[in-house]
Amino acid sequence: MFAPSRRISLTENAGEFAISKTMVGNDLSLLDHLFQEEGLGSVAVERGREGGATFRPRLSPERRQEWLKEVAHILETPDRVLPGGLLYYSDLLFSPFWAQRLGFALASSFADSPIDVVMTTEMKGIPLGMFTAHALGVPLAVCRFGNRPSDGSAVVVHYPSASGDVRTLFMGVRMLPKASRVLLVDDVMRGGSTLAGMLQVAKEFEAQVSGIGVFLVAETPRVKRVGYHTALLRFSISTDGIPCVEVQAPPSGV
Amino acid sequence: MFAPSRRISLTENAGEFAISKTMVGNDLSLLDHLFQEEGLGSVAVERGREGGATFRPRLSPERRQEWLKEVAHILETPDRVLPGGLLYYSDLLFSPFWAQRLGFALASSFADSPIDVVMTTEMKGIPLGMFTAHALGVPLAVCRFGNRPSDGSAVVVHYPSASGDVRTLFMGVRMLPKASRVLLVDDVMRGGSTLAGMLQVAKEFEAQVSGIGVFLVAETPRVKRVGYHTALLRFSISTDGIPCVEVQAPPSGV
Repeated sequence: MFAPSRRISLTENAGEFAISKTMVGNDLSLLDHLFQEEGLGSVAVERGREGGATFRPRLSPERRQEWLKEVAHILETPDRVLPGGLLYYSDLLFSPFWAQRLGFALASSFADSPIDVVMTTEMKGIPLGMFTAHALGVPLAVCRFGNRPSDGSAVVVHYPSASGDVRTLFMGVRMLPKASRVLLVDDVMRGGSTLAGMLQVAKEFEAQVSGIGVFLVAETPRVKRVGYHTALLRFSISTDGIPCVEVQAPPSGV
Repeated sequence: MFAPSRRISLTENAGEFAISKTMVGNDLSLLDHLFQEEGLGSVAVERGREGGATFRPRLSPERRQEWLKEVAHILETPDRVLPGGLLYYSDLLFSPFWAQRLGFALASSFADSPIDVVMTTEMKGIPLGMFTAHALGVPLAVCRFGNRPSDGSAVVVHYPSASGDVRTLFMGVRMLPKASRVLLVDDVMRGGSTLAGMLQVAKEFEAQVSGIGVFLVAETPRVKRVGYHTALLRFSISTDGIPCVEVQAPPSGV
């Protein structure tokens, strides 16, 4: 419950519950079966002294489609359209119920990539980034648009925004270890300028970018400032103000 | 795994796993026993057509002490002291491993209070607020220090900061339903001015404040702008720059 993607020692578990390792092994087989049946993932067991059990999140295509369809349906109401061609979705991202499912879906998409840390931006990226990191069993590092004394020292990068002015991102030097393998996660991508800024942050920290995952990608503008990315949903707003939200295919092989 | 404090129908579960309701009942008794043994909470089962099973988080005093002692130990290193008598703790709050445990501890402290929504402030409050809301099975509402078009319309309140100037908090009108019962959660409290601002936000939304929970409370200043609150840890920094972090007792009855 508390530690997906982290290895839990069999001996430790057997000790805590005062039962034999064989019994724990049987229970883990049952859990593995249940998780696979549910389309949520699997439990991998490594034998030996250094061994242990790890829950590996991996959403089945059916379960993924079911969850994302439901989110798309919630988003497709005209009263969610905000001035400037935006869609209101904060309620979904700040509902732990949905944020956990969306983070789990993103984590599943990158389950085979090498990832030490998830990177996101304040503030709507945080719940999605947090639950993605949770499912992957790694920490979260947050880029800020400003810096506060309690964040400690930071590295600053500048990047051009969609409107043409120059914006600033701060990354605390204690938050992101040098040369980490990072997964970039953000709530929404329109032109991709914020994600391009995050790529610059990654470069400053000599990080290897293992992937880019976003919750919502906008249909327009067609050309994005970042190349390869994985989105859960794609949205457009018709000229008469009706939102259309489509589930995106998972990366091939997932 | 995905829905603490939410009721799951027995019939639904039995259907999904193709087993009888009696068998699900037996499994739930076993789960209840395990959670209680582990000091994490219990599984409540309500019978009848409208019935179902709910996992209720409630950390045992021993488990709470164990987790918080470990966090206190991590925080008590001189290199965490920042200019201005602050302590660096972002790495803990942005580690899902620790944020989930801390949110679970706060949720346990307020398990008997009526709560419809958890309210916090950007940005370090978000992970703690999110995992507290997750454990309680309610959504999170976030006060911002600025407002963006994608947040939609907001209510603005002003409050005096510790330094004497006037600061501003924004709460999206779609984020917090009127007359909700709210739990205020924040990462740190020094003088309590931000929490006093959040109380004003609550007032504007005709909310009933069910409690105030913080991760870290500072020893100084002694006088806080808010009265009753529950902190997990209390910290002070000695004149020679050594931090001292103490586990706080849970509210009586927990």
